Amino acid sequence: MTEPAPQPAFVLIRPQMGENIGAAARAMWNFGLDRMRVVDPRDGWPNQKAVAMASGAGRLLDEAQLVGTTEEAIADCAWVVATTARPRGLTKPVLSPERAMEMARDRIAAGEKVAVMFGPERAGMENDDIARANAIVSVPVNPLFPSLNLAQCVLLVAYEWRRATEEALPERVDAVADWATQVEIEKLSEHYEDRLNDAGFFFPEAKADGMKLNLRNLWSRMLLTRADVQMLHGVLRQMVRWKERGD
Amino acid sequence: MTEPAPQPAFVLIRPQMGENIGAAARAMWNFGLDRMRVVDPRDGWPNQKAVAMASGAGRLLDEAQLVGTTEEAIADCAWVVATTARPRGLTKPVLSPERAMEMARDRIAAGEKVAVMFGPERAGMENDDIARANAIVSVPVNPLFPSLNLAQCVLLVAYEWRRATEEALPERVDAVADWATQVEIEKLSEHYEDRLNDAGFFFPEAKADGMKLNLRNLWSRMLLTRADVQMLHGVLRQMVRWKERGD
Repeated sequence: MTEPAPQPAFVLIRPQMGENIGAAARAMWNFGLDRMRVVDPRDGWPNQKAVAMASGAGRLLDEAQLVGTTEEAIADCAWVVATTARPRGLTKPVLSPERAMEMARDRIAAGEKVAVMFGPERAGMENDDIARANAIVSVPVNPLFPSLNLAQCVLLVAYEWRRATEEALPERVDAVADWATQVEIEKLSEHYEDRLNDAGFFFPEAKADGMKLNLRNLWSRMLLTRADVQMLHGVLRQMVRWKERGD
Repeated sequence: MTEPAPQPAFVLIRPQMGENIGAAARAMWNFGLDRMRVVDPRDGWPNQKAVAMASGAGRLLDEAQLVGTTEEAIADCAWVVATTARPRGLTKPVLSPERAMEMARDRIAAGEKVAVMFGPERAGMENDDIARANAIVSVPVNPLFPSLNLAQCVLLVAYEWRRATEEALPERVDAVADWATQVEIEKLSEHYEDRLNDAGFFFPEAKADGMKLNLRNLWSRMLLTRADVQMLHGVLRQMVRWKERGD
């Protein structure tokens, strides 16, 4: 643990209680993880209750990246998973924590940046944030009592990270592929949304938001390479040029 | 979870804070375990702080077996493990939580009773108690910060019990999803190829075949649902309509 080894960033989205942020920091550090990103915490930042609870893991809070939106938090990441029990109508691969951390390990070994997103305590994750993820991580809890709190969820995923990385060297996966980052996916998503808006695609208006969410979800689910993203931009650009030529 | 399936008993040895006993009950029930045994709790029994903390898992405390000694707590068990980070000079097999719960599962399936022992919060387990165990369970924590609390330790072992006993459903992809067939992907691919051909996308001609191949590869790599395919057809149709309207 002395050399800073590559590792996933854990992103806490709009956390509410400082105690929970501190407990999440401890849970991460219990398994050797120390890169926390915090999106728009309810009670501001720094948070004294978080610091008090973190005790031996306070450094994680000092070094945490504070950002205003989920988009910023994952901008540099090529593979992003959302920990949530309820996909609520979005189609996404659902991974066990074990499988997710094995995949994270392999992607990180291939030089990619990876993020694991955790939603706010009560409300859970919003569909807008889930839609940005490549996959969902679901802990196999007792359906009669599925009441994991934030720090417990962080603990279990961090534990699986440690399990996935403590032993044999990871197999290198698909080192050739140059995966698109979240920023590139975001831009692709916006490009389609803008042009399709001009084209009158999002109709009727009552359904427009749902259609946009589905489209966004599709892009982020696809595991696109940079070349794919370029091609998909090209497809759309060409359709617009064709329209403008009017032939 | 409706039928009481055979399961290990979790034995809390001389626990100190009621809150920790309640949190341990919740952690057990999160993964479907409900047989707790409590050895000589510091603050007596029942413990109101434990009850308050347990909330949805209060039944485990009502039904817990209260005993005076570790010996009594494990008297009926044929296989007993001790969760502790520090074997301190005793020679015992040391198991990962995963391996321990796999062995527990197999022994329980063979009709044996199994117990998992957890020591008091600060002091950890005494050698006298560790000596009663068939093996030690050690969580692979960060050696720089090995600070798991009682409920976290219970949570991780209970999670491994669940993993060892749930039916192997590794990578489930959202059961609801209605995946597109190969024919549908083929038609989508042709639709794009035709329209983009009209639009002059495949240019220069020397590169046209490679571009078509990449596009086709993209669609088939994507794991599209029927709804996705409909949406992607719709995207293209709308771009063509927009062109034809010429506005």
